[in-house]
Amino acid sequence: MHSAQVQRIQKDYPWVQTPLVVQAPLRLITFAEIAVEVSKAGGIGFVAAGTDPSHLDSDLQTASSLVSTHTPPVPTASSPAGPLLPLGVGFIVWGCSLSVSLAAIQKHRPAAAWLFAPSSAAQLREWSQEIRRVSPQTKIWVQVGSVADAMAFLEAAEPDVLVLQGTDAGGHGLVRGASVISLVPEVVDAVDSYFNDRPAADQQFGKPLIVAAGGITESRSAAAALVLGAQGIAMGTRFLASHEVHIARGYQEDVLRATDGGQSTGRTKLYDALRGTVWMDTYNGRGILNKTFTDAESGMDEQENKRLYEESLKKGDMGWGPEGRLTAYAGSGVGLVKEVKGAGEIVEEIRRGVAKVLGGVGGRERGGT
Amino acid sequence: MHSAQVQRIQKDYPWVQTPLVVQAPLRLITFAEIAVEVSKAGGIGFVAAGTDPSHLDSDLQTASSLVSTHTPPVPTASSPAGPLLPLGVGFIVWGCSLSVSLAAIQKHRPAAAWLFAPSSAAQLREWSQEIRRVSPQTKIWVQVGSVADAMAFLEAAEPDVLVLQGTDAGGHGLVRGASVISLVPEVVDAVDSYFNDRPAADQQFGKPLIVAAGGITESRSAAAALVLGAQGIAMGTRFLASHEVHIARGYQEDVLRATDGGQSTGRTKLYDALRGTVWMDTYNGRGILNKTFTDAESGMDEQENKRLYEESLKKGDMGWGPEGRLTAYAGSGVGLVKEVKGAGEIVEEIRRGVAKVLGGVGGRERGGT
Repeated sequence: MHSAQVQRIQKDYPWVQTPLVVQAPLRLITFAEIAVEVSKAGGIGFVAAGTDPSHLDSDLQTASSLVSTHTPPVPTASSPAGPLLPLGVGFIVWGCSLSVSLAAIQKHRPAAAWLFAPSSAAQLREWSQEIRRVSPQTKIWVQVGSVADAMAFLEAAEPDVLVLQGTDAGGHGLVRGASVISLVPEVVDAVDSYFNDRPAADQQFGKPLIVAAGGITESRSAAAALVLGAQGIAMGTRFLASHEVHIARGYQEDVLRATDGGQSTGRTKLYDALRGTVWMDTYNGRGILNKTFTDAESGMDEQENKRLYEESLKKGDMGWGPEGRLTAYAGSGVGLVKEVKGAGEIVEEIRRGVAKVLGGVGGRERGGT
Repeated sequence: MHSAQVQRIQKDYPWVQTPLVVQAPLRLITFAEIAVEVSKAGGIGFVAAGTDPSHLDSDLQTASSLVSTHTPPVPTASSPAGPLLPLGVGFIVWGCSLSVSLAAIQKHRPAAAWLFAPSSAAQLREWSQEIRRVSPQTKIWVQVGSVADAMAFLEAAEPDVLVLQGTDAGGHGLVRGASVISLVPEVVDAVDSYFNDRPAADQQFGKPLIVAAGGITESRSAAAALVLGAQGIAMGTRFLASHEVHIARGYQEDVLRATDGGQSTGRTKLYDALRGTVWMDTYNGRGILNKTFTDAESGMDEQENKRLYEESLKKGDMGWGPEGRLTAYAGSGVGLVKEVKGAGEIVEEIRRGVAKVLGGVGGRERGGT
């Protein structure tokens, strides 16, 4: 990373150690405990508000208490209203109440607000302007899955960070897309052109930092994302196997069991349909493909599949497993997730691993013929 | 790369400069001229036999002439039967005549045979054994898109090289899959375990070199693939915009025009269906999504779509373009392909670029906090 980028990360998020490792907000799964653990380890953790911010005030209160009892204190940026909470909050914009979200943001001043899936650029603009109005120091992170969205949302939200989600990511994302291997460099070039084409005097806002997500579960993929042009990496699936997530044991065991991630997971709207989850048409979710999926592929009608799904719900953890039917969103990197660890340990392991991978490959290639 | 791997590449392919840049065989598109140019530039070029080896003898004769007139001579490995042709040949195994292929291999001794999409592990075993029988020095390259196929084909073919094709790749590949971001590290670990679990004395064959493919069109993605654990990278889409490919101008202009590769391309069986191309069920192709695709999505029946497709065929280059309907297979990295260049220049540019990217990132990360 260029030293200017490192300085900017350290100014905006003073507790962070580079390379930047981010725990992505996962709806119903990541709350105060994991977010604080990740930030304590020098990453950036995100509490998920998802589509329901009604518990956000209480979640951020918990996070605030956890942070305040930490020794030594977690260094953080300050604002006239007081110090920022050294972690972020994630919102699924199309389905989330702005006013309820704003109240919690104003009260707790999270260091970052991660905005995903607005129903329009105008809605994203409103969210980013309103968040900045109630908490000017809160950085705006905007997640996109295409060059088109990156450029449209760049103008609409003037984001501090663009999160580029490749199609390997678990959970919801664009139905159609590229992985980070081509998405990241193409967006980086498009963003660079956007700023290069405008005289500095015309620029209303700075170039966003780039964070890559989708298929990153360990050091090699994290290092690769930085090589592609990102300044940080975000992981969701890796943290499903952490001690601090709110996850059913059956789901977590599915994550540990899955191998051959491109074959054991797939993108589909089926689980949304059976669970009655509403999502925008252009999005579906990547998850572990179980009996629900294979039965649907074999022609089972949706009503019967839904009935079996609901029966499985009653089984609790036994609703997952080799013969399971319940939703287990996970990315294509799930085959490399083998062990449940503390979220802080995961962050440190990735950070150390990236330095090792990049030191090794760079040195070897430079020494080659 | 470890120096043992560099030495092995330089022993098997003495003309190659590392990092290894490979031009993937593209059916009906890559013949002698491009393969020779790529190899002359220190990469490995592949003549595509595809499913029809009837012209392979003549193509390799042409390649042989082109190589023999080059000054200085292209260094190559030798066999008791004479020197090897310093390039490879690609076969789509399920649909290709083995006997016709063997005759050309025996006569011309290509340095590598790239085997893709066998109908079974048994068929792949037969191909690899027969090729080694008629030309023992010809290295066996096996392309796979999943961990399961990698391990099954490792035992069946004892390949010298495993080509790992991520789902971003243009043209045919597995319907379901991961991109290289998770496919490469997961296969690398599985292959390492396979060899680590067996005492050296029990090992009948050596660990294959890993070549990554799918979504790689420039230096950052190429460097990322090496960071993921590959020893070489293969590109198809980038070479569609080279002077030496056999490609319609309309198709090439589609490649140059396409942006936002994850959105402008997609995986589908539709073009195979309209062209009458037979392929295995588990494969489809990634290509630029044009009117043929959007009309099908809007409900046009296949017969009418096929009629319009056949009309477009009569228009030649005008059958492609913004309102075009003809097949334009390309990977998700197509948005980064902006200029037609010589194939040799592309190889050199990638090689230089990779060294620069890896030197830069490695150095910067090691200097970070």
